[in-house]
Amino acid sequence: MTFGIDWSIIFSVKTTNTRQILLETGKQLIWEKGYTATGILDVLQAANVPKGSFYHYFKSKDVFVLVVLDSYAQEHYTHVGHHLEDETLTPLSRLHRFFTAAGHWFESMPAYRGCMVGNLSQELGAYNEDFRSRLQAMLDQLRSNIQLCLQQAQDCGELPAQMPIEQMADFCLSGLHGALLRMKVSQNPAPLHAFLAILFDRVLVN
Amino acid sequence: MTFGIDWSIIFSVKTTNTRQILLETGKQLIWEKGYTATGILDVLQAANVPKGSFYHYFKSKDVFVLVVLDSYAQEHYTHVGHHLEDETLTPLSRLHRFFTAAGHWFESMPAYRGCMVGNLSQELGAYNEDFRSRLQAMLDQLRSNIQLCLQQAQDCGELPAQMPIEQMADFCLSGLHGALLRMKVSQNPAPLHAFLAILFDRVLVN
Repeated sequence: MTFGIDWSIIFSVKTTNTRQILLETGKQLIWEKGYTATGILDVLQAANVPKGSFYHYFKSKDVFVLVVLDSYAQEHYTHVGHHLEDETLTPLSRLHRFFTAAGHWFESMPAYRGCMVGNLSQELGAYNEDFRSRLQAMLDQLRSNIQLCLQQAQDCGELPAQMPIEQMADFCLSGLHGALLRMKVSQNPAPLHAFLAILFDRVLVN
Repeated sequence: MTFGIDWSIIFSVKTTNTRQILLETGKQLIWEKGYTATGILDVLQAANVPKGSFYHYFKSKDVFVLVVLDSYAQEHYTHVGHHLEDETLTPLSRLHRFFTAAGHWFESMPAYRGCMVGNLSQELGAYNEDFRSRLQAMLDQLRSNIQLCLQQAQDCGELPAQMPIEQMADFCLSGLHGALLRMKVSQNPAPLHAFLAILFDRVLVN
């Protein structure tokens, strides 16, 4: 008597779980230690998954890291990015909510480890074209979303008419990434707080 | 007949040269690829120096990287940092000269590889206490120098009396580092230009 068990479903659940465990474990390790310092063996050991499983789910380390980046992008959107699309707020309030949420989120991370996209951009930006173009696309998307809010804030009079919006979007995104870098190396959130205070008290003002 | 050659001098010149070659080669590699991705063997091969020489000059890779950081600090001061101490200029002009010089210097680098202190802070900041404290001290020193100029600019009326100088110093340094990161990942100096334009047209203004 087999109770009509559909083994393909059970196998599929196990597969999904192992893949998901590898992905989540790898994400944490790569976020902390970076690309070069994270070996596939480290991921397998931390995930307590048998050697040999990795290549069943991912063609290569580089494919794995690209999937990890997708997962990070979703997490960032859930915690931070979606605020830029909140139509219940004015454009400037959306920007305020977005940068404040980013501040809270990154301040809550173990060891102030920063933004995974920023970390990998620093590590791989200059020398690995596949990763560089992917990371750039992620940052460009975020910059476009910030720029749209800035433009709408200018159009409705929340920001001065003569503010150069495209440059300002770049300036805001750079400032956030620099503040995260300095929070990490000082192990102190003061640079992040200074960035948020100056940005909203002295830069994005009418 | 020996022509009175002082072999100790010749040995000393050779020693100095080999050490200097290792240091300069290692600096370029670490600047480009980071700490983890640069092995001692890579340095020896790139420097065309026999294996085994390394530990004659440096106790360990970590000691070597700390010496490399000292060398980087000197180079940065020569190209960029000294402008903050130029008493022939007004305080605000010193800041302008400093950030503009930083922009020119970093824009001239191969592959827009960024600031070595920023790169290593991103890579090692959260997890290696020896490097973290050294990198933090270097950034704190620079922030203090920027803060002093900002304070003097405020004292002589070049900047508004109500500007929070300490936070502004943090803000400026974070912005520069974020702009360097984004220049690297976009392989385009536009984010650096945007940072400099907004900083001097809209932030450090009276």
